[in-house]
Amino acid sequence: MGKVDDFEKFRKDINEKILQGENLDIKRFFALDSSVYQEGVLPARIKELMGLVASMVLRCDDCITYHILQAEKAGVTRKELEEAFSIALVVGGSIVIPHLRRAVALLEEIDL
Amino acid sequence: MGKVDDFEKFRKDINEKILQGENLDIKRFFALDSSVYQEGVLPARIKELMGLVASMVLRCDDCITYHILQAEKAGVTRKELEEAFSIALVVGGSIVIPHLRRAVALLEEIDL
Amino acid sequence: MGKVDDFEKFRKDINEKILQGENLDIKRFFALDSSVYQEGVLPARIKELMGLVASMVLRCDDCITYHILQAEKAGVTRKELEEAFSIALVVGGSIVIPHLRRAVALLEEIDL
Amino acid sequence: MGKVDDFEKFRKDINEKILQGENLDIKRFFALDSSVYQEGVLPARIKELMGLVASMVLRCDDCITYHILQAEKAGVTRKELEEAFSIALVVGGSIVIPHLRRAVALLEEIDL
Amino acid sequence: MGKVDDFEKFRKDINEKILQGENLDIKRFFALDSSVYQEGVLPARIKELMGLVASMVLRCDDCITYHILQAEKAGVTRKELEEAFSIALVVGGSIVIPHLRRAVALLEEIDL
Amino acid sequence: MGKVDDFEKFRKDINEKILQGENLDIKRFFALDSSVYQEGVLPARIKELMGLVASMVLRCDDCITYHILQAEKAGVTRKELEEAFSIALVVGGSIVIPHLRRAVALLEEIDL
Repeated sequence: MGKVDDFEKFRKDINEKILQGENLDIKRFFALDSSVYQEGVLPARIKELMGLVASMVLRCDDCITYHILQAEKAGVTRKELEEAFSIALVVGGSIVIPHLRRAVALLEEIDL
Repeated sequence: MGKVDDFEKFRKDINEKILQGENLDIKRFFALDSSVYQEGVLPARIKELMGLVASMVLRCDDCITYHILQAEKAGVTRKELEEAFSIALVVGGSIVIPHLRRAVALLEEIDL
Repeated sequence: MGKVDDFEKFRKDINEKILQGENLDIKRFFALDSSVYQEGVLPARIKELMGLVASMVLRCDDCITYHILQAEKAGVTRKELEEAFSIALVVGGSIVIPHLRRAVALLEEIDL
Repeated sequence: MGKVDDFEKFRKDINEKILQGENLDIKRFFALDSSVYQEGVLPARIKELMGLVASMVLRCDDCITYHILQAEKAGVTRKELEEAFSIALVVGGSIVIPHLRRAVALLEEIDL
Repeated sequence: MGKVDDFEKFRKDINEKILQGENLDIKRFFALDSSVYQEGVLPARIKELMGLVASMVLRCDDCITYHILQAEKAGVTRKELEEAFSIALVVGGSIVIPHLRRAVALLEEIDL
Repeated sequence: MGKVDDFEKFRKDINEKILQGENLDIKRFFALDSSVYQEGVLPARIKELMGLVASMVLRCDDCITYHILQAEKAGVTRKELEEAFSIALVVGGSIVIPHLRRAVALLEEIDL
């Protein structure tokens, strides 16, 4: 019912449509987009935080929401998230602030 | 009544206000922004697809909507659009995905 | 009740939460983000216009809204805003147009 | 001996090192980056022009050089390139101009 | 002989080639790119500083060089430039720093 | 004598000039830019990798060089770097490739 559920439903529904399409390269890209966040020499939770920082400096709200939800599942703490936020803020500048605000509002919604 | 109509109404209304303003340079820019997509040595439909790819890698939803609607009028097919999407996705990376999702949702709305 | 009030309420509420957090670097960044727009050898109203142009070429709607509201308080005129818009449009290109449209809609709402 | 040769040698040498590495996802990405420009429902030369426009608005000189060289091999004409340039310029704005200048200098070097 | 002269020579030579070309839209864009910085309700020197801030947050070295040289001709002071730099730095973040370093190296070269 | 030394010398020399200047906000920003990478709940080496990923998707060569050198001092391995590269590549797309090439050339120079 909340924004998180809306986000996840839309994401899931349209991803299905995309993956049922005929274009192979698009499907390969989606596979790759999962693969790089798998546990490796770097732990999956660190990779989610890297994806989060990248998404913040590139200012992609849906990507930020996704990586915060993934990071939460992987056991990331609020304090770790805030350190990631501070790096994104300094690298990306004040234009990151509106996205930080929406990220913090999401943390309230999911109680992290 | 759908999102497409809302988009087109807002776009038209505010463009009118902008073009009724006094600033000449803004008007000249708007004229130029129509001119580059006119039929030339490259067909108009190809130019719309170029505008679409550029809009996707720059992640501008309104621009994507506009160029998809224009491309449809120019007779572009779903398969051509998907090839354009795949280029935009690989050039621009996974941050393009949320915009691709909204583009695909638009294709559903306009039945392309 | 309008969009401006919603924007200002959300901005104020979440900023408070952010500034009540423990991360010092984030707070320092927020302080710096106020400091650079203070009256200096350049007047505050010119600095707001600079912040506006930067926000437009980086296509950050919340930042644009904020700097327009600040510029209005500092006595900036509609004609000055339009000259700033024209610079942002030429520097940043047609992908700035959707943000320009929302900026002009805001000017209507606040009667500037 | 010219800049084009330097570019192509560095590109080839380092690509080899990258593709000899162990990271599978990086190799998959490189494969995908070739695949999307292959002849499809859209001709390869049009896809190179799309890659070019995307590279110009994202202001990536090496990508611009690469797509111009590929477009030349695919038989693209100077006039077609200029129409692609004009779209990139209007979409991406005046910050594209320095890259346009380097693109035009490259056209002189390769006599297109 | 210095970097400034190299920059200005390359800029002038290639601009000439571009403006001798046949593509009208490109020429119109170049005209517009001069027009927006002309004295208006905002003074030309302020417009150059706005162009500078926009160029810094978009991280375009040639654009930064150009606007600093124009700003100098328009009588901008070092202190005004530094206030413009500080806004660009906070808006655009630490990725602006390498461009700030090259801007400061240019100020040394032109003794501003 | 190599590129790394040139980079470090220019960086150090100009940073000194910047920090000897009068503008307080610029100095505060530089302090903040060091502070966010300090050991915290996240280890310093992870923060350097986050800074690296952010720098790659934003395509800032100097920032990439800096974070690779810092990551090396913090004991990051080649395999960890490659996993960070793969995330940056997928998030940021093929326009990251030229920067990846220069990053790999740097790893050769510093034998990592």
